[in-house]
Amino acid sequence: MNGVAIKAIVFDTFGTVMDWRKSIVADFRSFGERSGLDVDWEAFVDEWKTAYRPGMDAVRMGKWPWTRVDRIYRVKLDEMLPKYGLGGLSEEQKVYLNRVWHRLRPWPDSVAGLGRLKQRYVIAPLSNSDLDCLVNMTKHALLPWDVILCAELFRHYKPDPEICLGAIALLNVHPSALMLVAAHNYDLRAARTHGMRTAFVRRPTEYGPSQKTDLEPEEDWDIVADDFAVLASALGC
Amino acid sequence: MNGVAIKAIVFDTFGTVMDWRKSIVADFRSFGERSGLDVDWEAFVDEWKTAYRPGMDAVRMGKWPWTRVDRIYRVKLDEMLPKYGLGGLSEEQKVYLNRVWHRLRPWPDSVAGLGRLKQRYVIAPLSNSDLDCLVNMTKHALLPWDVILCAELFRHYKPDPEICLGAIALLNVHPSALMLVAAHNYDLRAARTHGMRTAFVRRPTEYGPSQKTDLEPEEDWDIVADDFAVLASALGC
Repeated sequence: MNGVAIKAIVFDTFGTVMDWRKSIVADFRSFGERSGLDVDWEAFVDEWKTAYRPGMDAVRMGKWPWTRVDRIYRVKLDEMLPKYGLGGLSEEQKVYLNRVWHRLRPWPDSVAGLGRLKQRYVIAPLSNSDLDCLVNMTKHALLPWDVILCAELFRHYKPDPEICLGAIALLNVHPSALMLVAAHNYDLRAARTHGMRTAFVRRPTEYGPSQKTDLEPEEDWDIVADDFAVLASALGC
Repeated sequence: MNGVAIKAIVFDTFGTVMDWRKSIVADFRSFGERSGLDVDWEAFVDEWKTAYRPGMDAVRMGKWPWTRVDRIYRVKLDEMLPKYGLGGLSEEQKVYLNRVWHRLRPWPDSVAGLGRLKQRYVIAPLSNSDLDCLVNMTKHALLPWDVILCAELFRHYKPDPEICLGAIALLNVHPSALMLVAAHNYDLRAARTHGMRTAFVRRPTEYGPSQKTDLEPEEDWDIVADDFAVLASALGC
């Protein structure tokens, strides 16, 4: 790495900090048991998640006006429910399911690693998620963020350049004093374009046991680590 | 108060949470002693602070482009230094003085009161200060914010309506589920205009021992309290 000292570290959140798939499957399975519903929740969650990238990209390409992630998932949820025999859910139940992103659990190493990094650096999520979702998730999972940064502040979704440039401006740091940590190569490519430092953390089961993408770093990122404990050590914490 | 439950509480920060005047006078006095400088620091700080409102208002009225608070204070600092015999300070020393806002201390009741309120509500600053200043101040003073909200996110200074409306939108709450806590009646008047709840906390020495303004509530604010312990109790924490 070059000579400028790192001051702040921003994190892709869903997949990098939070184990969203396992959290949601467990949450929905519990909901199904309470409600007497027999559903293949893994298939349900995998199909639901497919709405994410096309929704973001519709906003990024100007096909949709600014649309919150909460809305993108709700549209897909409403579309899917009948197919899974869930067309009769109440509005209250639908809101409960759609807000599962507020109740996610972190990977086992996330909170302890962030706590170590916070001692020396400013730490923040840099997520496509809505601000209120990140706030509620942070309280629920006891994440020790110093500040919350997200797409909604800039009204642009990753990998639009406004996200990294906005974080650099708000944190008021030189680009190379800011590091992005992500389990996704595409996130890191965008960060490097803007002169930021990069750390790849392997999360080989983010998409379940048969994940095919992002198993390995695709460029020579500044740090490659298997978890946040290794990351914290590599950053002198 | 009406029937909607409060979900989130935002705080004016400088004066309401932080004892900026006493902090800065003590910080500069210590700087003066280390540097062998004999200055009337109380007069210096009181004059420096007069730059704040005219700077904000120049932005609000469109006379200046968007200008960060850090810049507003730096311009005034540079203008004042020769008058106080400080024209020979190095650039490093000037930056050190201008960043004193990052090193402020809270009122004695602030951190404990915020900790109680955080158990039940989302808590955030809603400040005219720059985001990086709030982040550094938060780490320095161990303030337990859930999220940091400030003028820079909206590129509007209080009491422009974009500040309260922006906080309501980002927190995704009904206006009456959001409370503003402030030691300034003008802040609370703006919040009430948008349907927010209001709490006045007396800080009768914010501007020093001879303060003349904001000694008492000027409207029937929802809560009036002498400190954050009383405020937390009034809010059921």
